Amino acid sequence: MTLKVYCDRMSQPSRAILIFCKMNGIEFEEITINILKGEQHTPEYKVINPMCQVPTIVDGDFTLFESHAILIYLSCKYPGVASHWYPSDLIERAKVHSVLDWHHANLRRGSVGVIINNVMLPLNGVPSNPQAAEEAEKTLEKALTVLETFWLKDGPFLVGRSQPSIADLNLVSEVMELDQLLSKELRDRILSPYKKVLQWVEDTKSATAPHFEEIHGVLFKTGKELREQLASQSGKNE
Amino acid sequence: MTLKVYCDRMSQPSRAILIFCKMNGIEFEEITINILKGEQHTPEYKVINPMCQVPTIVDGDFTLFESHAILIYLSCKYPGVASHWYPSDLIERAKVHSVLDWHHANLRRGSVGVIINNVMLPLNGVPSNPQAAEEAEKTLEKALTVLETFWLKDGPFLVGRSQPSIADLNLVSEVMELDQLLSKELRDRILSPYKKVLQWVEDTKSATAPHFEEIHGVLFKTGKELREQLASQSGKNE
Repeated sequence: MTLKVYCDRMSQPSRAILIFCKMNGIEFEEITINILKGEQHTPEYKVINPMCQVPTIVDGDFTLFESHAILIYLSCKYPGVASHWYPSDLIERAKVHSVLDWHHANLRRGSVGVIINNVMLPLNGVPSNPQAAEEAEKTLEKALTVLETFWLKDGPFLVGRSQPSIADLNLVSEVMELDQLLSKELRDRILSPYKKVLQWVEDTKSATAPHFEEIHGVLFKTGKELREQLASQSGKNE
Repeated sequence: MTLKVYCDRMSQPSRAILIFCKMNGIEFEEITINILKGEQHTPEYKVINPMCQVPTIVDGDFTLFESHAILIYLSCKYPGVASHWYPSDLIERAKVHSVLDWHHANLRRGSVGVIINNVMLPLNGVPSNPQAAEEAEKTLEKALTVLETFWLKDGPFLVGRSQPSIADLNLVSEVMELDQLLSKELRDRILSPYKKVLQWVEDTKSATAPHFEEIHGVLFKTGKELREQLASQSGKNE
């Protein structure tokens, strides 16, 4: 039975899983749950994932969510997956777990907070909370600094690896969300000081070509539309 | 060379690691980094863990942080660790990863937010932000509901397991922080609706006796003192 991947290419962890499957020749059926339309809240999807989030995989009668857990599961299930994605060496594997765990409360938390306050709320005409926006930006800047100075210090990939692991896929997808959804001004202010981070994004793109560009196509297109919509709203308000 | 565990028994993930080591007969040296005194920010500790957080383990020349990653590493490194802590079966292991990943942005985020706003800020005479306090409580209540109705639905332990895994240790330590640091009134309001959660805490205590009580001793004592200090401050303000 084919692996089912319930996802939305506008979601960072969904993209990580899709790229991983394509890079490793894993056959799957992609089932889009459009999160901008709220399809993750339908009763049908809630049966599959009671948290109403994407991605979820269904492999036979086994349902799994949380993207890090999914990537680990797929790495172990399919013998054809190259070992650099999820190293079997105890210490190397522990390092990958460590940066994946760090991701949740740092890069992801900061990134999601900045996007909600600077993109999603304004697009929906909801006033942003300046204190929450400031805190999110601080969390994100701190996370990007740690990424630049610690996790990428022995580069080119996270935790000093010479080839990408599942952690690179997940964290680069997160940075791409900022890269594509923020206004040019905000994107430059937030991301441009982090040269190693930007180089690592490019290295991960190259290492996962052509799937990276293909899977990010929807984000590139929608990101452009949303930025134009925001700029036009902001012009109206001036 | 003996495993070094840099930790503070007032930190939830530190306690999980200490209980795990004691339960599994792993020899270690416990090095206390007093977080209430800010010892995690000393230059000496920053060399060990640049994130200035506890716990950290140093095993020979390998340094590792992030408590979930540490528990997985220890489970795999020591052959004497009983298999229920970190199951080797692919699907069972994936379920444990899934609830551990969920923990970060849900139970932990809510719990830490509620404790900061209701305990740490008042103790330090800093005015709490009502909106942040309300949001943290909402996040926590949602997380406790998911814990009660989903992760513990097939109980007695998380993801339907009959014996505790590393996820039980980590998440129960989190709930203990609420149980011991919140005022009786707030603790009852927040925790008492979740009968399965409370039963699971008791079951985990029993399954890890006598180490659970011993490792939690500092929290029991300090929690009582902090609650009394808060009650006395609140009396003064009336």
